Amino acid sequence: MRRIKIYDSTLRDGAQAGDISFSVEDKLSIARMLDKIGVDYIEAGNPGSNPKDIEFFGRRGELGLQNARLAAFGATRKPGVRVSDDKNIAALAAAGTDAVCIFGKSWNLQVTDILMTSLRENLNMISDTVTFFKECGKEVIFDAEHFFDGYKADKDYALASIEAAIKAGADSIVLCDTAGGSFPDEIYDITKFVCGRYDTEIGIHCHNDTECAAANSIMAVKAGAVQVQGTFIGFGERCGNANLSSVIPSLQLKRGFLCIPHDNMSLMTGTARYIAECANITLPNNLSYVGKNAFAHKGGMHVDAVDKNPASFEHITPESVGNKRGILLSEVSGRTAVLRTLQQFDPTLKKDSPETDRLTTLLKDSEHQGYQYEAAAASLELIVLKELGRVKNYYEIEDFNVCVSKPQDGKSSSATVSIRVGGSIRTASGEGNGPVDALDIALRKSVMQFYPAINEMKLIDYKVRVLDSVCGTASKVRVLIESTDGSGTWTTIGVSSDIINASLQALNDSIEYKLIKPNISSAPL
Amino acid sequence: MRRIKIYDSTLRDGAQAGDISFSVEDKLSIARMLDKIGVDYIEAGNPGSNPKDIEFFGRRGELGLQNARLAAFGATRKPGVRVSDDKNIAALAAAGTDAVCIFGKSWNLQVTDILMTSLRENLNMISDTVTFFKECGKEVIFDAEHFFDGYKADKDYALASIEAAIKAGADSIVLCDTAGGSFPDEIYDITKFVCGRYDTEIGIHCHNDTECAAANSIMAVKAGAVQVQGTFIGFGERCGNANLSSVIPSLQLKRGFLCIPHDNMSLMTGTARYIAECANITLPNNLSYVGKNAFAHKGGMHVDAVDKNPASFEHITPESVGNKRGILLSEVSGRTAVLRTLQQFDPTLKKDSPETDRLTTLLKDSEHQGYQYEAAAASLELIVLKELGRVKNYYEIEDFNVCVSKPQDGKSSSATVSIRVGGSIRTASGEGNGPVDALDIALRKSVMQFYPAINEMKLIDYKVRVLDSVCGTASKVRVLIESTDGSGTWTTIGVSSDIINASLQALNDSIEYKLIKPNISSAPL
Repeated sequence: MRRIKIYDSTLRDGAQAGDISFSVEDKLSIARMLDKIGVDYIEAGNPGSNPKDIEFFGRRGELGLQNARLAAFGATRKPGVRVSDDKNIAALAAAGTDAVCIFGKSWNLQVTDILMTSLRENLNMISDTVTFFKECGKEVIFDAEHFFDGYKADKDYALASIEAAIKAGADSIVLCDTAGGSFPDEIYDITKFVCGRYDTEIGIHCHNDTECAAANSIMAVKAGAVQVQGTFIGFGERCGNANLSSVIPSLQLKRGFLCIPHDNMSLMTGTARYIAECANITLPNNLSYVGKNAFAHKGGMHVDAVDKNPASFEHITPESVGNKRGILLSEVSGRTAVLRTLQQFDPTLKKDSPETDRLTTLLKDSEHQGYQYEAAAASLELIVLKELGRVKNYYEIEDFNVCVSKPQDGKSSSATVSIRVGGSIRTASGEGNGPVDALDIALRKSVMQFYPAINEMKLIDYKVRVLDSVCGTASKVRVLIESTDGSGTWTTIGVSSDIINASLQALNDSIEYKLIKPNISSAPL
Repeated sequence: MRRIKIYDSTLRDGAQAGDISFSVEDKLSIARMLDKIGVDYIEAGNPGSNPKDIEFFGRRGELGLQNARLAAFGATRKPGVRVSDDKNIAALAAAGTDAVCIFGKSWNLQVTDILMTSLRENLNMISDTVTFFKECGKEVIFDAEHFFDGYKADKDYALASIEAAIKAGADSIVLCDTAGGSFPDEIYDITKFVCGRYDTEIGIHCHNDTECAAANSIMAVKAGAVQVQGTFIGFGERCGNANLSSVIPSLQLKRGFLCIPHDNMSLMTGTARYIAECANITLPNNLSYVGKNAFAHKGGMHVDAVDKNPASFEHITPESVGNKRGILLSEVSGRTAVLRTLQQFDPTLKKDSPETDRLTTLLKDSEHQGYQYEAAAASLELIVLKELGRVKNYYEIEDFNVCVSKPQDGKSSSATVSIRVGGSIRTASGEGNGPVDALDIALRKSVMQFYPAINEMKLIDYKVRVLDSVCGTASKVRVLIESTDGSGTWTTIGVSSDIINASLQALNDSIEYKLIKPNISSAPL
């Protein structure tokens, strides 16, 4: 198996994404996670451009990396300035990493129009900078910026730029599709040419502007590249970078290369989700390999086929990347799907058990009313556990009231909720930004008087969907609420023609799920 | 330029995605939008598996398609059943479309392990079904399910399956990577072999399980495929289908093929966003070509470089796909778009008119707050007309109040609204199914006392989106309301952290638009 080095730039190129802003603590947590899964390099910042990155590198000792080398990223020296006088170069050296990644221009247009210097001086800048860091005893990775656009515009100059780095002693040369406009056939042909011409290790760095970054990275490896740069869940400037959470499993599980220790492959999904959480972004459900729906089956025929033979609709096993199969219950799913769900709690149940029958009917009724459990596994779990008699009633909502008026100054809404546990009733009120916020505050205040554990949980997502929208404002709405208590997240659902009622159902399920959570013996659905 | 036919399956394969549930109205709206941008086929459902799809096809006459052919999707006949006795085949024929897409198995494992029939009978099923629909006079597209996996497992059988369809008269054969596990090099080689062997039109249908669906579709076209199946914004079962909003621009703007009328290319971004709104999903900001950040530059050096020469970090111009650059340096480009809007009402306005300047600022502020006028043309028209001083204030909302309590019997909510016209104030109350319904009733009752024409209009659609959903129930929401008065429909928008306030803004715009409607001389935006 050919060994492919993985170079993760989540903390540098990833931080250039539109919606991302990492704290130093976030960066430290993510670096530890990347080290654990076994990437070769962690590019953690550009000390010349960013004081936050300087702080990060100052704390690099806290990381205790076991596998990965830390890399700092920076440009070649400025035109007309000596390396030893360039303050960005000084900051890069001061970062104290064993490896540095130096980017320089390979496209003649970039040199003349953007750097506004001569083609000759750019080659000197590359050469001087690589020489400087080699003399410092560092591993030098040279990122040939815009290499593919440069190769198309002036092949000789693009090659001269990487030859300057090679002659100065660069340990590896990374061909960058910086503007992300290339396709797999172009990347393959050009990378193959370069790999055949030089002995130095060649790497690949792709952006996703044509949605080909993952494919391009794989084709570059086929052509001979031995290092892949990307970001773990694909975010980065504009359309993002090559998504390592798909490139690594593709290369290692399907193309016969070795990227990370094989036993760590099952950490893939958990690592991706952890990084998403640190970055405070929502991982798309349909993300390849690691998304929540990557192995989810909805169509009745597909569910049936996967039940007979998983290979029929799964190109790899979900477990091999630490993901799991999801059977999405919907109007097209049948008894097989329901049975799969039930058996997670009671493996002795059969297709013709009375529980299977009752739950199939119950779910079909609910779905007809507009409930959709594919995105609300916690509500589904509550229904199943109730059907199996495994959950008690923790409390009942005795009464509630919400009022909204024209906002004067500040909050527009207030709510009061009374709940009953046994013979005892507690009432609480709250004010909020809108009626649902006020209701949430009042409900949690009142439940907390009986169950203080509720204090640990909070809502992190709230979604509303109108179902039969042709009825106008009297339409049915479906509310989805996602909650977390730090150790897990769960999603619940409510449906009603009244958005307040629908929200209340979902809030209620969310609280109830938190209360039963310590008692659930099975794996989550 | 080689012509490539685009086959959109947003309404069928897209509806198999985990988070998607379309109403029939949603499907009609999306089909009209796809027709407008100029796709060749709209696959709108599987009438054999889904009663909702039967209703859709029953209403196909309402669509008035100008460009696209409607296609219905279904399986070959069942094993051991005559075509004429198969009720799914009957449902497919009854859908009344000019084109049908028949899927049949090309992978021996699927035949023996899933269909549990003989390899011979599967070929007969393909042949009989294609023959039946050709005898009905329909265009028949044969989707060779699991073709690539089948080719790898038993090349001869995979080819026999498509030969059965070709001999029975299929108009085109579509090679499907159903489990989505293939890579560009495999897709290219196999497609090239098939295209060289048969005269029939060959198409490609890819799934995104290795994140290569877009790249695979492009490589298949390079190999000779002339039809691309996908979904407009990529959603579909598991990891989704080939994303047409990236495949079309890649093929047409960068690879020299013709997919849709060239003038329609600038509708790409608007169409993608419209479909996302209908599906009530959030379009990822980093989506290639059409995402909000697809041309957004954050890194200081990138911003500077783009200012000097856009080609330095943009592989195509954002305008060519109707998107825009995500930095404010080029205020001129924003101004150009605003000017085009203004000139529909006053052709004498220029780029440097004070109106253009004021409206540019106003719209930028609104968009920053979460307003998005692509799906709310009536609200945009109101803003423009107000800016040009062409609209008077018809009324002001003096006060309002909404209350919701635990439903006893019947309606849960009541509202009171007071409006002022000049010195005169009218108040009305209403009860409804939920707070927004009650508010709508009370508002209309009060306005009607001054403007009886309001009686002619009603709401036909109400949609809610949560914007910054990480704030939980205090998130900002965006409400879209569609209204009609029989002679036209219009959509308005409201944004607030309070759903009641957001709804009130949209209801208000909707009523105001009805009042000014008789006086608008220009075509709608």
